[in-house]
Amino acid sequence: MDYRFRDEVFNAKKAAMGEMYNLAKEHLRDGDKLINFASGHPSTEVFQDKLIKRYLNLTMEVAEKDILQYGAHAGYLPLRQTFKKFVNEKGNVVKPEDDLIITYGSVEAIFLTALALVNKGDKVIVEVPSYVNAIKSFQIQGAEVIGVPMQDDGVDLEKLESAMRQGAKLFYTVPNFGNPSGITMSLSKRKEVYELGVRYQVLIVEDDPYGDLRYRNERIPHIKEFDTEGAVAYINSMSKLIAPAMRVGFLVANKEFIKRIIPIKAVSTNGVTSIIQFALWKMFEENDMYAQIQKICDVYSKKLFLMEKSMDKYFPEGVKHSSPDGGMYIWVTLPDGTDIGKLCKESAIQLHIPITPGNGFCVVEPESCTSLRFNFVKESLEDIDYGIQKIGKLMQHYI
Amino acid sequence: MDYRFRDEVFNAKKAAMGEMYNLAKEHLRDGDKLINFASGHPSTEVFQDKLIKRYLNLTMEVAEKDILQYGAHAGYLPLRQTFKKFVNEKGNVVKPEDDLIITYGSVEAIFLTALALVNKGDKVIVEVPSYVNAIKSFQIQGAEVIGVPMQDDGVDLEKLESAMRQGAKLFYTVPNFGNPSGITMSLSKRKEVYELGVRYQVLIVEDDPYGDLRYRNERIPHIKEFDTEGAVAYINSMSKLIAPAMRVGFLVANKEFIKRIIPIKAVSTNGVTSIIQFALWKMFEENDMYAQIQKICDVYSKKLFLMEKSMDKYFPEGVKHSSPDGGMYIWVTLPDGTDIGKLCKESAIQLHIPITPGNGFCVVEPESCTSLRFNFVKESLEDIDYGIQKIGKLMQHYI
Repeated sequence: MDYRFRDEVFNAKKAAMGEMYNLAKEHLRDGDKLINFASGHPSTEVFQDKLIKRYLNLTMEVAEKDILQYGAHAGYLPLRQTFKKFVNEKGNVVKPEDDLIITYGSVEAIFLTALALVNKGDKVIVEVPSYVNAIKSFQIQGAEVIGVPMQDDGVDLEKLESAMRQGAKLFYTVPNFGNPSGITMSLSKRKEVYELGVRYQVLIVEDDPYGDLRYRNERIPHIKEFDTEGAVAYINSMSKLIAPAMRVGFLVANKEFIKRIIPIKAVSTNGVTSIIQFALWKMFEENDMYAQIQKICDVYSKKLFLMEKSMDKYFPEGVKHSSPDGGMYIWVTLPDGTDIGKLCKESAIQLHIPITPGNGFCVVEPESCTSLRFNFVKESLEDIDYGIQKIGKLMQHYI
Repeated sequence: MDYRFRDEVFNAKKAAMGEMYNLAKEHLRDGDKLINFASGHPSTEVFQDKLIKRYLNLTMEVAEKDILQYGAHAGYLPLRQTFKKFVNEKGNVVKPEDDLIITYGSVEAIFLTALALVNKGDKVIVEVPSYVNAIKSFQIQGAEVIGVPMQDDGVDLEKLESAMRQGAKLFYTVPNFGNPSGITMSLSKRKEVYELGVRYQVLIVEDDPYGDLRYRNERIPHIKEFDTEGAVAYINSMSKLIAPAMRVGFLVANKEFIKRIIPIKAVSTNGVTSIIQFALWKMFEENDMYAQIQKICDVYSKKLFLMEKSMDKYFPEGVKHSSPDGGMYIWVTLPDGTDIGKLCKESAIQLHIPITPGNGFCVVEPESCTSLRFNFVKESLEDIDYGIQKIGKLMQHYI
């Protein structure tokens, strides 16, 4: 059968994220240990399985049998209100003219936004580097994805403005400790990004799955907090704060925008599993969730600080790394011309330490990318120090 | 902010399914009773809440903590195997060259199929009448949706062939007791539909959410069972068999097809909630699910037989109804020219008995549709008889 797939689907490349991990696993022999810095996953150790269990039990005890029926497309109303309160505790994110829809993680919020706006050939702006699944969402819609380079304090504003001037539909950004860069956008840049969005009528899609995982320095207001024009869509997720298996995220935007998202949600996945939504609602109502999240920060911050220290100690001169204030990733950059493909393969095969080559995150000149993404949250302190030392030695052959 | 939505999204009409119910509720005064024949929902009474609770508890007891991590995009492997076994117990649906992906209900399976195949302007064939969310899925992709009329034994083959000859990407059909028609496609038509699909290289999308809810006559093999060419995608859902809140369905198709669906699933919703998948896996492994489903059939069949009897008794001459062998709906057709919009409104406002006008299900000449959809599973036997009697009286003013 000739299915005649859409070109965007037929030509879609598989994300290479798991490639190095698989390579390392293949070459593992008895007694070898695999240290995985390539993962895109949070650490299982911080998942509050007892809390989740308690509230799933409670849901099946106290909820009306109606909770097993089809739910509202936009999400379970009490949970929508709870999330509004939650996100507004730290800043004025959800305005009176906004609404909030519950999605299957942040990916669905990004995907629905792309579906709502992007026609084949439309321009979409992303940072370089940027989140792979967002890039792919836009590409599946047939977008022309324009990359704007990052600086230490966030996106290059001059290049962003010139990209916006070309008439893009949206600018996708992760201002807090982005995946993979770990970079935080400065307050002044956030304000300017917002102003540019309004001036050029380009929707700012502010994805914030890591924002509450901050390990140092002061919180910076979200771009959405400056929004008076409905020019920002704010996305968050429970995947890193509770557990990915909840598959719950949310999108906050002007009511006019959410109104167009709900019918797509209705026919694409109908709504998010009500059992999980009810459990989350009760969990948020009866617990100090920011205190729960602080427990994650306590675990992850130690790992960040150690990995940075180990990198400073073991990596050869000429290797730079980002110093994220939070999140899950450090972005490591080697000198121009370094063959990172070979380095990553050797690290996986010889050391059994997979790391992720940076080119998959870059829509501009991926072939000249000499950066690597390190997940610092998944492995133990001991393995972090040992693994970074090993990679440091390996790097010496590449410098 | 001018969001510049895609035309298909901006022009999408809200499904009018809930309209009559809302109208009835608005006009309800103290002491009035609302009898809802308009619903698209299964009946809460058949949901096995104790079973669901037991397996959610078990999941949190026995599953590794890893169940809270990101899961496989295609679904939890043991559940995929369990569903293959389940569906193959009654017929040879999943062939060696096929694969199965877990989706958020049947809607996501339809939506992903549309995303994989349909470019703006591509032709897609549906039955008249057909499932509203499927029609909308295709329309959001910008499809030109071609309607082919139904006969008592399924789609009109001559008109289907002439539609296929125009080069459609797919034909969407619900061969077992479709929503809203209740019609079953005959065995000979199933074989011919398959042959046509192969001849014209049009994928047959066979949606079967009601197939196991059969109350009389013999099971007829699925179109997928004849498939040797990868020309059929088979979709099923747990929404009517367990509960809609599980949000679990699946898609069976040739491996080449599933291979292209998985990357879209990965970036749109990542994967289905693992907790629910694990619970369902255990539930299916430890219980005779077909025996569970028989309990639903015992409840629903009584309601169908009564509603038919009541319709025969109370509806005026000239009003015809389908005689479904299963499912949830009876399709009632009034004489040409009947103002069903007015009839439905009067039924909702005066009688507090919402019913769904048929035009929303028809992509061909919806304005001349004189049919109504009756949900026969939601209300009690007593209310069914009472409600049909009331509507029968009202119909007399329209005949």
